[in-house]
Formats: sequence, C-alpha cells, structure tokens
Amino acid sequence: MSGAITGTKTGNESNLENAMQLMIQTFHKYSGNEGDKYTLSRSELKEMLTQELGSYLGNPQDKDAVDKVMGDLDANNDGEVDFTEFIILVGALTVACNDFFLEFNKKNEEKKE
Amino acid sequence: MSGAITGTKTGNESNLENAMQLMIQTFHKYSGNEGDKYTLSRSELKEMLTQELGSYLGNPQDKDAVDKVMGDLDANNDGEVDFTEFIILVGALTVACNDFFLEFNKKNEEKKE
Repeated sequence: MSGAITGTKTGNESNLENAMQLMIQTFHKYSGNEGDKYTLSRSELKEMLTQELGSYLGNPQDKDAVDKVMGDLDANNDGEVDFTEFIILVGALTVACNDFFLEFNKKNEEKKE
Repeated sequence: MSGAITGTKTGNESNLENAMQLMIQTFHKYSGNEGDKYTLSRSELKEMLTQELGSYLGNPQDKDAVDKVMGDLDANNDGEVDFTEFIILVGALTVACNDFFLEFNKKNEEKKE
C-alpha cells in the first residue's frame, strides 16, 4: 500500500506523492487540536495560517484576515473548514504562486533581451 | 521574497510551502519537454502520471487511462493540461487519499474496541 495513502513515509514517494502527503499531514496537525478532529475551527485555522502561510498572507494574526479566509472557505457556513475546503485554499494559493513565478520569469527574460 | 514563490528552496519553508513548491516543480519538470512549455501535452501527461502517480493510478501506460484523465481534465478541450487543471487533479486525488486514510483509521479503531 502506498505510503501517501496511509500517511506514513516510506522514502519511495515521488515528489508529487510527497506533496500530497504533506498537505494531508498539515491539515491533521491542526484539525486535531479541539472540537471535531476532522475539521479546522476558527482558532485552528488561524494557527495553521500563522504557522504555515505567514509569509504569503501578510499578518494572519489580524482577526479580520482570519474571518475573511474563513468566510471565503466555509462553503456550508458551519464555522468549520473541512479537508476539501482546505485543499481548495491550498490549490488557489498554488495557482497564484505559479502565476507569480511565470510573470517573474518572463520579466527576467525580457531584461536579458 | 518567499522561496516557494520563486521556486528556489531556502530551507525555511513550512511543510505546506514545501508541498506547494513540489507541485509547481513537478508540473514544470514535465511541461517543458515539448510544445507549449507551460502546458502538459498528452505525452507529457502520460510521462507525469507514470513517474509520479504510478502507484495510485494502476497502469498509466494504458493508453485508454491516459486518454480518460486527459478528457476529464482538459476542460477547454485543447488537448493540453494547464497548471490549474493539473492542480484540480492533484487536489481531487489528495481528497480521495484523505478519505481513504480516515476510513482506514476508523476501521483500525473499531478493531481495537
């Protein structure tokens, strides 16, 4: 059985399997702290944003910023972020990073010409 | 500037930043081989599926399997998979793995009781 599925590291994972494993591990690291252990409460979300994405999201200590992310993600409006909602956040951020990275490369190439 | 944005590894990334970086790197590792260097052609997609997700997808050497993934992902029907379509695939697989992992844990807990 693949390590990425069971969440244990076997050392034979591809880069993409590693990425999937890291996303699963990160979610459960924070979701287990209080309440429903399979969802992120508002304070678990804040902790996750601060620890994992501080450099992307500016200052997530800012209560309004956490409320905004929670409002955008919590599609079913239950005050909790589930795993699918978390993956949508990470996916959207990754697409934004990739766009930024391509733009950055394009500008560098233009400079060289 | 954050390493995950520029695609260079600084060693200070969080696990989640690492995951995002690995997804960006994996896509560009295969997308640059032929044609448009920012999209996966059918043969680049097949190479990526075989190398990175062989253990998940059974036998992606199977031409029908590659055609099926391509058909499902290629929303705009241009025969190429762009970065957003790639992230949707990885996200969907990660949600499926997480569901499997929770189910697996639940069964193990029931056995203990």
